[in-house]
Amino acid sequence: MKHAENHKEKPVILITNDDDITAPGIHALVDAVRPLGRVVVVAPDRPQSGMGHAITIGVPLRLNKVDLFQDIEAYQCSGTPVDCVKLARDKILHRRPDLCLSGINHGANHSINIIYSGTMSAAMEAAIEGITSIGFSFLDYSYEADFALPKRVAHDLTKKVLQDPPPAGSLFNVNIPMVREEQWRGIRICRQANAKWVEDFDERRDPHGKKYYWMTGEFQNLDDGEDTDVWALENNYVSLVPVQFDLTNYSLKKELERHWKF
Amino acid sequence: MKHAENHKEKPVILITNDDDITAPGIHALVDAVRPLGRVVVVAPDRPQSGMGHAITIGVPLRLNKVDLFQDIEAYQCSGTPVDCVKLARDKILHRRPDLCLSGINHGANHSINIIYSGTMSAAMEAAIEGITSIGFSFLDYSYEADFALPKRVAHDLTKKVLQDPPPAGSLFNVNIPMVREEQWRGIRICRQANAKWVEDFDERRDPHGKKYYWMTGEFQNLDDGEDTDVWALENNYVSLVPVQFDLTNYSLKKELERHWKF
Repeated sequence: MKHAENHKEKPVILITNDDDITAPGIHALVDAVRPLGRVVVVAPDRPQSGMGHAITIGVPLRLNKVDLFQDIEAYQCSGTPVDCVKLARDKILHRRPDLCLSGINHGANHSINIIYSGTMSAAMEAAIEGITSIGFSFLDYSYEADFALPKRVAHDLTKKVLQDPPPAGSLFNVNIPMVREEQWRGIRICRQANAKWVEDFDERRDPHGKKYYWMTGEFQNLDDGEDTDVWALENNYVSLVPVQFDLTNYSLKKELERHWKF
Repeated sequence: MKHAENHKEKPVILITNDDDITAPGIHALVDAVRPLGRVVVVAPDRPQSGMGHAITIGVPLRLNKVDLFQDIEAYQCSGTPVDCVKLARDKILHRRPDLCLSGINHGANHSINIIYSGTMSAAMEAAIEGITSIGFSFLDYSYEADFALPKRVAHDLTKKVLQDPPPAGSLFNVNIPMVREEQWRGIRICRQANAKWVEDFDERRDPHGKKYYWMTGEFQNLDDGEDTDVWALENNYVSLVPVQFDLTNYSLKKELERHWKF
């Protein structure tokens, strides 16, 4: 039981992602934080990018143990990233992990992208449970990306959060620019930039002559502030945005209370 | 061209939902606001509850004209509620609608449920585009629910928003209690209650002996404020929460800036 007792003292770190359990990004994340606690991986068995905060209601979920991370306990799940976090807590850990890490996502999740991101939704789900959580995303989305800088950032930030913990249930959206370690200028605490996607669906015809559409789009940054995540990334900083899930628009609420009488 | 000119003057109201285009709730919503503008319906061709802000990336989308709402232009879409809004703007309307309405959802979307809700995500997608939007949800989720009160609320609120418009891109989460019209006490402007779901997955075995899980859960209201949506609904009010999509946690940001030096 000595082994088990050792485990007890180490912080339990739950790791998930949205690219799926085979993606290089989640392997980089496990490697980066492996020395910092008892790591348990529960991640989707297929790509789940753009799933937002989707949960699976209409079909049952499967959970299978896999041996993909050497000595690390790991499971693949048939559900969404949010399902993974819910199942991990209820059926694998039987307790709250001390920390939840999601990623490292292949591609950016800065600014408005947080809304569509399965990576960030998994982290948010844990934060709703009172678990401090970090989502990591790397602006290089190629499969062969060099994860040296993202690994260093994930290691350092996770260590910081464990040693100097923010309030329980804190949630951070961390994006890492596509630069070499020597060009990297450090970490900046930012706000979410005001930005959006302008869609331009690609209209095609199938072999039977029927129309179908592929979503494409162009990112538009509408924010010229120098305190935003987009600015930080353009200037070779890692961006760190503290995130909340109370979506009440308090300033609009105040305005309505003055003007709208029911 | 007289017909077209008439159309030009009427506000264009885009209607979508997450229960799918055949659900009684969306038919109730169309009926309720039909006299107030030129209504166009673009809604999913199958149930999409719990889809959150999911978008479809890996497969192309289909869009088919349907004749389900008498003289109202309507399309069913193979994608998520958010996909419906994006496609409607880009491929059907070729402009921003004046208003986007989503629902009427069969079931509650108050408090933390907003995060998981396809109904609210569709409305939020429109708001990101600068379109004022309202998501309507009715606490009675039965297929045979009596939509008299929800229809009245949808009509009155839509009329108010058109006549006395809030800032462009305003977003409202409106929930309607399961009460008769005569018990209804009016509309209250609220904040999102602090609440969560406690999951309890139902573990079963398939005919081959392999485990699978159904998500179940219990709702926990952690908030005893009388200014929340949950309180309003429990007290026979319709709740109206103004919603934002800047998820930056500004108070935590300030705290980190004082304590965390990078």
